[in-house]
Amino acid sequence: MSSTITIECTRSKATNGHTDEDEVDMDRSLGEHFLSEAVKVILEEAVHKATDVKEKVCEWKDPDQLRDLLDLELRENGESHEKLLQRVHNIAKYSVKTSHPRFFNQLFAGVDYHALTGRLLTETLNTSQYTYEVAPVFVLMEEVVLRSLRSRVGWSEGDGIFCPGGSISNMYAMNVARYWAFPQVKMQGMWSVPRLAVFTSQESHYSMKKSAAFLGIGTENIYNVKVDESGRMIPEDLEAKIVHAKSQGAYPFFVNATAGSTVQGAFDPLDRIADVSERNGMWMHVDAAWGGSVLFSKKHKHLIAGIERANSVTWNPHKMLMTGLQCSVILLRDTTNLLMHCHCANATYLFQQDKFYDTRLDTGDKSIQCGRKVDCLKLWLMWKATGSQGLSDRIDKAFANTKYLVEEMKKRAGFQLVSEPQFVNVCFWFVPPSLRGKENDPIYQEKLAKVAPLIKERMMKRGSMMVGYQPLDGRVNFFRMVILSPQLRHSDLDFFLDEIERLGKDL
Amino acid sequence: MSSTITIECTRSKATNGHTDEDEVDMDRSLGEHFLSEAVKVILEEAVHKATDVKEKVCEWKDPDQLRDLLDLELRENGESHEKLLQRVHNIAKYSVKTSHPRFFNQLFAGVDYHALTGRLLTETLNTSQYTYEVAPVFVLMEEVVLRSLRSRVGWSEGDGIFCPGGSISNMYAMNVARYWAFPQVKMQGMWSVPRLAVFTSQESHYSMKKSAAFLGIGTENIYNVKVDESGRMIPEDLEAKIVHAKSQGAYPFFVNATAGSTVQGAFDPLDRIADVSERNGMWMHVDAAWGGSVLFSKKHKHLIAGIERANSVTWNPHKMLMTGLQCSVILLRDTTNLLMHCHCANATYLFQQDKFYDTRLDTGDKSIQCGRKVDCLKLWLMWKATGSQGLSDRIDKAFANTKYLVEEMKKRAGFQLVSEPQFVNVCFWFVPPSLRGKENDPIYQEKLAKVAPLIKERMMKRGSMMVGYQPLDGRVNFFRMVILSPQLRHSDLDFFLDEIERLGKDL
Repeated sequence: MSSTITIECTRSKATNGHTDEDEVDMDRSLGEHFLSEAVKVILEEAVHKATDVKEKVCEWKDPDQLRDLLDLELRENGESHEKLLQRVHNIAKYSVKTSHPRFFNQLFAGVDYHALTGRLLTETLNTSQYTYEVAPVFVLMEEVVLRSLRSRVGWSEGDGIFCPGGSISNMYAMNVARYWAFPQVKMQGMWSVPRLAVFTSQESHYSMKKSAAFLGIGTENIYNVKVDESGRMIPEDLEAKIVHAKSQGAYPFFVNATAGSTVQGAFDPLDRIADVSERNGMWMHVDAAWGGSVLFSKKHKHLIAGIERANSVTWNPHKMLMTGLQCSVILLRDTTNLLMHCHCANATYLFQQDKFYDTRLDTGDKSIQCGRKVDCLKLWLMWKATGSQGLSDRIDKAFANTKYLVEEMKKRAGFQLVSEPQFVNVCFWFVPPSLRGKENDPIYQEKLAKVAPLIKERMMKRGSMMVGYQPLDGRVNFFRMVILSPQLRHSDLDFFLDEIERLGKDL
Repeated sequence: MSSTITIECTRSKATNGHTDEDEVDMDRSLGEHFLSEAVKVILEEAVHKATDVKEKVCEWKDPDQLRDLLDLELRENGESHEKLLQRVHNIAKYSVKTSHPRFFNQLFAGVDYHALTGRLLTETLNTSQYTYEVAPVFVLMEEVVLRSLRSRVGWSEGDGIFCPGGSISNMYAMNVARYWAFPQVKMQGMWSVPRLAVFTSQESHYSMKKSAAFLGIGTENIYNVKVDESGRMIPEDLEAKIVHAKSQGAYPFFVNATAGSTVQGAFDPLDRIADVSERNGMWMHVDAAWGGSVLFSKKHKHLIAGIERANSVTWNPHKMLMTGLQCSVILLRDTTNLLMHCHCANATYLFQQDKFYDTRLDTGDKSIQCGRKVDCLKLWLMWKATGSQGLSDRIDKAFANTKYLVEEMKKRAGFQLVSEPQFVNVCFWFVPPSLRGKENDPIYQEKLAKVAPLIKERMMKRGSMMVGYQPLDGRVNFFRMVILSPQLRHSDLDFFLDEIERLGKDL
């Protein structure tokens, strides 16, 4: 292995008669030289410093300021090597450091160095994953990764594919379910089928709405099922909503259960939902984009019991497993090649049937995409490096860190949980000193609603950390803290609480 | 700028009392060390060697062999640093070198070093592009890049977004067109609208089928418009098909014109198609995924004249502009925020309206995705480095190389063009010596159909180059050579012709 070779800038020998060939050689040398210089900047600014707790999470600038600083306009002529390196540096500087230990703003955080390696290799190889011919390594790798993920779900057989994000994975599920119920829809469209009804909880992800709209089902044909205080779907209400839909002449075909809801981290009761789905002959999908990763943990996978009864599962390893964006799969229990039948268009320029190898390996026609990025490598390399046991330990550590934060929160005045966490989402209000004990004040809620946005603004401007907030179902703005990175220490969690207090004490 | 800093593996000081904090520090050091070692392998194997004309384009292995070589199974325990580096090396070794000067297999090829830098930075920053808050640099950058691309189309205003590939960009166009014609469809679904009809040429991309199926329109509601010998849509037949669809009670709402068809590289006559679309009150989309890049060339942009009359355009800079996968945009002439209205779901946890900055910058709700990768940086950095003039030169060079190849081909026996190239696709049959002069033989076509697959098999097994083949509309298997990379020299094109002759001389 030549791991010690460094790329040097070797200009091609100077000649008087300058040729096409010389020019190509020189471009290549200069290109490699730029790339290796830029990689140094990237490793320093976007990896090393970006994960340093002593550095800022973000360097807030107003949009107008930032436009000036970045000089984004595109022009007729190119720029110098030095100027371009400075640009790489600035892009890193003004970007939010999502790998920073104090980035809690989304359902992804931290960095896995092996996964990042996989991402860099993916980009460099620039493979489009349609056929074995052009993506031999990745066709076989995707097969193994999908099988390994399915086996965590509890399926020894099945199907699946990597998709560009959880929303599109959910769309796949809804489309395959529709095709399963009414295969004529692929050719004849929705006019050939009865009005379809989708069931999902009030607190499920908004991709259900986007899916129903995009697929031509319509958002009004989504029946929102009630949830309990913690955000879990109430199966009795699901049953009632199905009866109601039928009474309105709709055809219930698809139940979406959520395993790890976006805001509260709630796990719907899958076994009871499976009972209802089966009784009604419906396709059951589990949106486990966020919560699916508990399947790695012996200690916590009970949360997702019953997932094996689903017909399909969305799972985003780019969230809790930290593979980096994007890494999302749709997994199917189906063994009848439904995914291929539903999506294939049999393009002859790509999926020739007279190739010299087994063309069942040309899996690209299962996708609604044509060119498709390789998303399996980052997960595969991380899994090889860490082992299933190591991934399990990470999940357990996230739960332990969550427990720690909640305990510390309870020791402090002013932190009020929205509900007791089931997962690693900690939803809470910070009640500033001026509002404490004034819960009965008629404008208490109105005032409380303004606290989180103000704290957030101050936080962003300091750049000390990032965490999200939102209202939910009649509850005014509260913070959603998300704890997932194994790089989190207790000191980061203590800092989090201290910083919220510091930023909100005078409100 | 700290471009000279190298990441070293500095283990944290040894202590007897091993703590959580020490462990995190050590993981970080080891992680950075692995990453920097792996980057050396990547730069050597997947950049330097992968672009070296003296190396193979692919290292063909049968699937079973390759499975053995790669040891893909995922296990309980992790692996050593050395073993993992070897895996990085092997993945590069057995992957197809799409950056190689002799990779002609798809509508992308070569490498742009600045774009690759942008991709590596994108991966490292791991940004999801929903809001200004979390993606400040990239929200502004996407805005500028989209504006600059629109200005090439000829629009001083408009809208757009980056999508995960051209197929999904085309789906966006079809969905927005449907919403424009019947806004109630978003809420009420397809039962609230008449049967819709889509018009596209016989030789348009298969994503039209996938789009119609996925959106619930149905593939039977696509009317395939006839093409001329070179693959260009015949406007008179479009008009006739529209009349026909109406007579069947369908509602014509969407015309897809192709600018650079997948196989023949044909440009539909956009002005004449725009006339027909306007007369019929239809949405005109141009799928310029492949051909859009001619907009950079003063010399060749006449091919795409009339594009400014479209309502929407798909354009994939990851094809001819060489940004690397994925880089695809849907551009809209619309100034009424149709894209947002059509796709928004107003998730309150992400798109809060009480933020402290102008929330119009939170463009993520225009997408059907939630998490969305940054696709603008690679194009932006390449454009900054090369300038519009440099990009124009590249396009012109591709046309010049195509002309060279065609002239050389005409000098040799056995090469027979399918049609005279309009663009940089060169479609041809190689007629081996044994078949020459036997065109009237009743099994000539049958025999000729077998030539391309056999040559392709030999080519793959030698690893000398890669080029695709397909049948088309009654014409038996022919090669589609694609010439786009400025890294191509005449010697590579000569090699191409020689190698086809060598591989096919005894067939």
